[in-house]
Amino acid sequence: MNPLSNPSLKRITLAVSATITLGSFAIASPLQNAPTDPDAVANAIQYKGMQKMGAFDLLSELTGKVGPRLAGSPGADKAVEWGVNTLKKLGFQNIQKVPCMVNHWVRGDKEQLTMISGNSQVALSVCALGNSIGTPANGIKAEVIEVHSIAEAEKLGATAKGKIIFFNGPMDPAQVNTFAAYGRAVAQRGGGAVAAAKVGAIGAIVRSMTLRHDDVPHTGAMRYSDGVPKVPAAAISIVAAEKLSAAIKQNPKTQLHLKMNCKTLPPAPSANVIGEITGSILPNEVVVVGGHLDSWDLGEGAHDDGAGIAQSIEAVSLIKRLGWKPKRTIRVVLFMNEENGGEGSQAYAKFAVTNGQKPYAAIESDSGGFAPRGFATSLKGDDLKLIEPWLSALARFGIMGIESGRGTGADIAALERLGAKGFGLIPESQRYFDYHHSASDTIDKVNPRELQLGALSMSTLAWLLAESDTSVSN
Amino acid sequence: MNPLSNPSLKRITLAVSATITLGSFAIASPLQNAPTDPDAVANAIQYKGMQKMGAFDLLSELTGKVGPRLAGSPGADKAVEWGVNTLKKLGFQNIQKVPCMVNHWVRGDKEQLTMISGNSQVALSVCALGNSIGTPANGIKAEVIEVHSIAEAEKLGATAKGKIIFFNGPMDPAQVNTFAAYGRAVAQRGGGAVAAAKVGAIGAIVRSMTLRHDDVPHTGAMRYSDGVPKVPAAAISIVAAEKLSAAIKQNPKTQLHLKMNCKTLPPAPSANVIGEITGSILPNEVVVVGGHLDSWDLGEGAHDDGAGIAQSIEAVSLIKRLGWKPKRTIRVVLFMNEENGGEGSQAYAKFAVTNGQKPYAAIESDSGGFAPRGFATSLKGDDLKLIEPWLSALARFGIMGIESGRGTGADIAALERLGAKGFGLIPESQRYFDYHHSASDTIDKVNPRELQLGALSMSTLAWLLAESDTSVSN
Repeated sequence: MNPLSNPSLKRITLAVSATITLGSFAIASPLQNAPTDPDAVANAIQYKGMQKMGAFDLLSELTGKVGPRLAGSPGADKAVEWGVNTLKKLGFQNIQKVPCMVNHWVRGDKEQLTMISGNSQVALSVCALGNSIGTPANGIKAEVIEVHSIAEAEKLGATAKGKIIFFNGPMDPAQVNTFAAYGRAVAQRGGGAVAAAKVGAIGAIVRSMTLRHDDVPHTGAMRYSDGVPKVPAAAISIVAAEKLSAAIKQNPKTQLHLKMNCKTLPPAPSANVIGEITGSILPNEVVVVGGHLDSWDLGEGAHDDGAGIAQSIEAVSLIKRLGWKPKRTIRVVLFMNEENGGEGSQAYAKFAVTNGQKPYAAIESDSGGFAPRGFATSLKGDDLKLIEPWLSALARFGIMGIESGRGTGADIAALERLGAKGFGLIPESQRYFDYHHSASDTIDKVNPRELQLGALSMSTLAWLLAESDTSVSN
Repeated sequence: MNPLSNPSLKRITLAVSATITLGSFAIASPLQNAPTDPDAVANAIQYKGMQKMGAFDLLSELTGKVGPRLAGSPGADKAVEWGVNTLKKLGFQNIQKVPCMVNHWVRGDKEQLTMISGNSQVALSVCALGNSIGTPANGIKAEVIEVHSIAEAEKLGATAKGKIIFFNGPMDPAQVNTFAAYGRAVAQRGGGAVAAAKVGAIGAIVRSMTLRHDDVPHTGAMRYSDGVPKVPAAAISIVAAEKLSAAIKQNPKTQLHLKMNCKTLPPAPSANVIGEITGSILPNEVVVVGGHLDSWDLGEGAHDDGAGIAQSIEAVSLIKRLGWKPKRTIRVVLFMNEENGGEGSQAYAKFAVTNGQKPYAAIESDSGGFAPRGFATSLKGDDLKLIEPWLSALARFGIMGIESGRGTGADIAALERLGAKGFGLIPESQRYFDYHHSASDTIDKVNPRELQLGALSMSTLAWLLAESDTSVSN
């Protein structure tokens, strides 16, 4: 079977008009009053929004003053305060924290992994996966078996007993959409430890989820399963994975020695941060614009998801700076702990229901701060008619279409279930997994203009949604 | 008048089908024989082409083994030999050099620019513009007048006599297409020295053509005009331009002291490099795939235009590796001296005519190695019907449409005048001018996957053109 053919992948249809525009646009002066024509809206947002790279300035603050902000950590607490203060400084209304309890995992000391083959001992670049238990103080040491998928591990049977399983299934480089490649490989990271433990192995080592050939390990969430013993799980860099694979080929008795003292503490109090421009006519109908405030702990969380936080604040702040008053409320939501529990997302949805608000629409950015290419949307069929007339206006920012009827983002899924029209920004994906969940996710990887164009796309869409004549359908 | 509205910019129409696809594609096994269906062609090229980032490997060689390669320099000679050897190694047919004489300008010693205001002396980051004369050995020293356009300089009149003119018109950040912003600002670089000399000034200093806020100066070609005195011309970084502008506001008597010993030598012999897959049915009808082999001297010419060279070789080499035999000849042309004279382009067109060949089509990549977004084409109206059926196949690489009836690339313009259907790859443009013509244009700014996707787009288009049923119209 051809490993590249995957009939389960949905073929996605762009709803574009037959003739759209690309490239150079003559842009006119912004109007004094809020325009209604989508082209005039986008024009005004482009004119004002490209004079200053506001999203990059916000991201510089978040990465520079706060840095990494894993849920439950002091960095996350700092990020919440930064969020409140930033929204205040920018003049948002009804700023508040929406509290939630979050999973609280700590990495502990720098992890150590040694590859032992005969007399040779080689240190490999490693990091614990989020939620993993640690090892005993002197580590775990065992022979290693290489597999390329969960299914292959499950078939190991008794040979796996007492061994360490090495999940070395690469992301498929032939996928142009790197998220598709990630989606098909990441089960090894999430479920490798459980699969390993089920066949009696004592640990799981996973090839990092990246397409970049370097020595940087990438973390991310893993999970345990009730009734299956918990074994330690860690990711190694691509360079380390290649070294290990080569060593095993040469010597099937190759051993690994892994030491890490990460652990899970009791849940910690944290919060989403929200602020808004209150709607002038339908204040109780809310257009949410958001990303997640937490990040993994190894880099600065610049693309994941500092970019989405900065774009969301800039998108709404720009509407404020234009002096426009939306009919519906446009609210920034800085969600807490997308990476390791999603408690912020649940807490916000509950907050909305408790307060009797109608989640009219929600826009999420959590795919990196690269040049925008489209929006994913939960809308399907006739419901797409709402946004089709807006697409030619969005084209100026690089938005070439809408991917319909699919998942948009983890943090707004709960709002979609409450009836919100959901949208997820789709940026160019080639570089995202070069940095994702690793020490490489730093602000120097973000281009200010690419980030800003995403913010302007979100700003335009948020405004058009807030002004739209379509009534709430939920 | 609103400086952003420019009615002369053509509104460009994408000829896309009403429903196109984006994002995840299920891709099937490549066919053994050359397919004819555009989707099958693109699928096979994706399948084989994404397994190895061939264009990046070629670019690594060119930047690593050759480095900068300004026309007439030893680096350019080395690049020509590298081109011949690379095409040989890859098994191209009819490899040859197509000779030409090239302009030969040399930068000389590191340029020096000092800003003098009262007792303060500040060194500014500077580089000579290509073709500029040098200064006397002790430099030129004069008060400086700031302007923001050629037109403003021309109106200075007698006040400019004996002064240095500082052209500080920025690229317009509000333009989403950075090439549009460049096109409107670059007259200051090309024509600033002539405009300055016409009003009696003794030198021209130009704000670098970039949207990035850093201290790196960007070079590029300038020109003199018969009957107008030649004065030295140099570019300064954005940081330097801001310092200078601030100093002039504070002290209108601010002086500049510029030293440089660049000069133009007699024209030097050089060459294009060509190699091909000879057509099986119409060998005399040629599809050219090319970029320019020369670069400016300050960086490695990674994006400009090592990317185009690497993509062109990879695009055709991939067709060879697939074992496909095209009806028409597909020829790689590594053009010499696009940057400072275009003599290679002229020489190749003459070579084609002399040898009685029909330039059927030409594809150029000279806009950077970023993720592909479209093709510019010289085709218009009904002629677009040839390529419209191919667009949905190209969409998998990120190609969202065709910009019709416009300039495609400097090196293939002469072939278009001979009747070739012209195509220029349009990559995402946000980062291009961050690096363009500067010491920052190095391979670490190139993403291997983005570069490869451009190569695969070119490969697919080249194959479809070579197999097309349309006869030569010239």
